[in-house]
Amino acid sequence: MTQVTRASLRTLDAADPLAAYRALFRLPAGVVYLDGNSLGPLPRATVARVSQVLRVEWGERLISSWNVSGWMDMPVRIGDKIAQLIGAHAGEVVVADSTSINVFKTLAAALALNSGRRVILSAADNFPTDLYMAQGLIQLLGGRHELRLVDSETIAQRLTDEVAVLTLTHVNYRTGRLYDMAELTARAHAQGALVMWDLSHTAGALPVDLHQADADLAVGCGYKYLNGGPGASAFLFVAQRHQARFSQPLSGWLGHAEPFAFDAAYQPAEGIGRYICGTPPVLSMSALECGVDMLLDADITRVRAKSVALTDLFIELVQARCGKYGLTLVSPRAAALRGSQVSFRHPEGYAIVQALAARGVIGDFRAPDVLRFGFTPLYTRYVDVWDAVTRLREVLKKREWDRSAFQVRQKVT
Amino acid sequence: MTQVTRASLRTLDAADPLAAYRALFRLPAGVVYLDGNSLGPLPRATVARVSQVLRVEWGERLISSWNVSGWMDMPVRIGDKIAQLIGAHAGEVVVADSTSINVFKTLAAALALNSGRRVILSAADNFPTDLYMAQGLIQLLGGRHELRLVDSETIAQRLTDEVAVLTLTHVNYRTGRLYDMAELTARAHAQGALVMWDLSHTAGALPVDLHQADADLAVGCGYKYLNGGPGASAFLFVAQRHQARFSQPLSGWLGHAEPFAFDAAYQPAEGIGRYICGTPPVLSMSALECGVDMLLDADITRVRAKSVALTDLFIELVQARCGKYGLTLVSPRAAALRGSQVSFRHPEGYAIVQALAARGVIGDFRAPDVLRFGFTPLYTRYVDVWDAVTRLREVLKKREWDRSAFQVRQKVT
Repeated sequence: MTQVTRASLRTLDAADPLAAYRALFRLPAGVVYLDGNSLGPLPRATVARVSQVLRVEWGERLISSWNVSGWMDMPVRIGDKIAQLIGAHAGEVVVADSTSINVFKTLAAALALNSGRRVILSAADNFPTDLYMAQGLIQLLGGRHELRLVDSETIAQRLTDEVAVLTLTHVNYRTGRLYDMAELTARAHAQGALVMWDLSHTAGALPVDLHQADADLAVGCGYKYLNGGPGASAFLFVAQRHQARFSQPLSGWLGHAEPFAFDAAYQPAEGIGRYICGTPPVLSMSALECGVDMLLDADITRVRAKSVALTDLFIELVQARCGKYGLTLVSPRAAALRGSQVSFRHPEGYAIVQALAARGVIGDFRAPDVLRFGFTPLYTRYVDVWDAVTRLREVLKKREWDRSAFQVRQKVT
Repeated sequence: MTQVTRASLRTLDAADPLAAYRALFRLPAGVVYLDGNSLGPLPRATVARVSQVLRVEWGERLISSWNVSGWMDMPVRIGDKIAQLIGAHAGEVVVADSTSINVFKTLAAALALNSGRRVILSAADNFPTDLYMAQGLIQLLGGRHELRLVDSETIAQRLTDEVAVLTLTHVNYRTGRLYDMAELTARAHAQGALVMWDLSHTAGALPVDLHQADADLAVGCGYKYLNGGPGASAFLFVAQRHQARFSQPLSGWLGHAEPFAFDAAYQPAEGIGRYICGTPPVLSMSALECGVDMLLDADITRVRAKSVALTDLFIELVQARCGKYGLTLVSPRAAALRGSQVSFRHPEGYAIVQALAARGVIGDFRAPDVLRFGFTPLYTRYVDVWDAVTRLREVLKKREWDRSAFQVRQKVT
C-alpha cells in the first residue's frame, strides 16, 4: 500500500484490459459514479438501439415486428444471454416482469414442488421485496406456510426438514456479504429443501455457476450491474429438471403453449417459456439486451478480477486516508466473501452520502447508517477510487454534511 | 350512402376537427393501419421524450432521476391521467406491470373482498389471458373457487348469489361487442357480486364512466388505443371505497408504505399505491405517457364520435362494395353496441389478412376465421376507409390469397 499514489493508479488504468469499455458509456463529466449497483449508467449502444426500435421496428414495421424484428423472442433470447453470465444453460433463463414478480413465481413453484413442507426460510436482512413477496404468497395460500427469518450467520444451522425452500440474496444489498452458493445449496438439498437465489447483486458483477452449485431456482435484476436501464425487466432461472413439473400461477397468455390459438384453457408452454406472463415491454427489453451484450463481450471473469482489485483498493485507501473519521467497514474484508460493493457505517451516513454527491461522488445510503459504494469495472477506473477517497476525506475532515445535507435532503432520497 | 365517393370523404377529412393529430404520428408511407387495437403507432413526441429520458434523465442525472426527474411518481401520475379517460378519480388508477398481472391483483382483491363466495363468473369468449390468470389464481388458492364461463349473451341471467366477482372485457377483442357497463355492474351489485372490467379495448377508444357505473375494479392495456408502445405498462383501477380494505398479494417493495425504510415486514402504502409491485420500467412508461397525453388533448368524446363515423362507414362500404364475396359481419351493426373495431368472418380470413397486408392495409386475424379492423380516429382518415375497402375488394375479387398467403405466412402470425 505504501507506494499507492494517484500516479501509480493512472499507470494501472493504462494497463487495464477493460479500460476501453468506459468509452462505451455516457457518463456525466466530473462524476465518480459508485452507484451502478443501484442503477447502471447508460451504454452508448443503448441510445442507438432504442432509437432503432422506436423509429424502424415500432414506427415503420409496426405490429409485424413481433415476428420480423424478433420482439416475441426477446424474453428467451436475452435469457439465454444472461444464462452465460450465471452458469445456466440455454433454455433455463427467461427475462420477464420485475424481480419481485419473479420472486413470487419461483417461490410459488418451490412450494408446489415441495408441497409437503411449510417453511420458507430466509435471512432477516434479505432484501425486503423478497420477503414481502413471500409474505404476500403465504397470505394468499391461506396462512398455512411460515416465512422463517433468521440471522444470516446461522442460516446453515437453521436448515431443517421443515424447510420447503431457502431463499437468499447471493450478495447482500447492504453489506455486500457473499453466501457460498454451492455449500448452502448442498446443505439445503441434504435436508430435502429447494433453494431460490436472488442474483440481483451478482449478475454482471461476478461469475456464478448455477449448474455447478446444482441450483434449483433463481431471479435477478436487470438495471444494476447489467446496465439495462431504469426499471429494466428482471430475469428468472428454473433448472431444466424442475421446469416441466409445475406451471407457475401467474399464467398469462404469453406463457401459454399456443398464445395465438386463443384457447379458453391455460396450457403451459414447454420449458422456461411458461414463466412468461404478459406482453414483454420491448423498449425496456431492448435496452437490457445492450447492457447484457457488453458484459458478455467483456468476460465476467475479467470483470470480477478488476472488481476485487477496485474494492480492495477502496478499503485500503479509506482505512489509510480516512482512518480517523469514524467509518466502520461493514463489508467483509476478504474479497472472496464480498460482492462488488463496499459498505461503511457512520452515524452521519445519510448526510455524508449527500455531501459526497455535491462533490460529484455518487454513492448510496441504506438506512439506518450505511454508506454503500458499488464498483463496476466496465467504467470505473483505479484513479476514480483515489478521487472518491480524496473527496470523502475532504467531506469528513470539513464535516461538510452540516451544510450540504440541509441543501440536498429534499432532492435525493 | 349513395353519395359516398372518395372525393366526398376527402371533404369530410378536410373538415375533421381531429385531422391535425395524424401529423403527430410517424406512419409508414402508403399504409392504411387498421391494427391500432393491437399495437398503436409511434407518436412523434415519443421519440423526443424517450431520447430525453435516455440522454438526460438516465445518462446525466442517473440515480437521482428517481426523484428529480419524477420517475418514482410515474405510476400514479400516469394513472391519474388515464383516470380522466375512463371516468375515474385521481388516486384510483395506477400504471404497473402487465394487464395479465393486474388481472391477478384485482381478482385476488375481489375474492378477498367477497370472501364468502367462490365463483368467478366470466364469458367463455373473454380474452384468454383474463381467463388464464383467473385459472392460475384459483389453482394457487387450492381449487376451492370455480371459474364459471358462460355464453356472453346470458351473462346477466347467470349472475347469482354464488358469484364473488364478474369479470368481463368491456369491448370483446374478437367481435368488438360492447357490454353495458352500468347495467351489468348494477345487476352484479344487486346479487352482492363485485365486477372487474378489462378496459383493454376501451381506454383511448371510447369514453367510459367508471364512477357513473359504480365500478369496483378494472384493468387495461397501454399499447393499444393509448399508443404507449410495444409491451407498454398496463393500468389498474380500484374504486376508492375498496382501496384500504385489502392489500393485494403481489406485495412488492414499491407498494410498501415506506419502501426506503427497508423494513422486513410488508406494510401497504395508503391508497392505490399498494397496487404497485416492483420498480417501474421507466423507458416504457415514458412512452406510454406521451400516448396518453395526446388522447387527453384530443378529447375522448370527439374521438368516439369519429370512431363511430369511421366504423359505420367501413361497414357500409364493405357491404356496398364487397357484398358478394362471402364476408359476414361479426361486430354489432348498431354503433352503440360496438367498440372501435369492425370484424368480419370469412373462411379464408387468415389468408385475406395477409393478402391485404401485402397491399398495405394492416388488419388482424383472430382464429379461427375472423378479420379484425381497428379504427383509430387520431390517425385514420375517412379516405383511408375508402382505400382499405377498395383494396379489400381487389383481394377478394382476384382471390389474391391463393398466392400471397404462401409468400407471407412465415412472416406474420
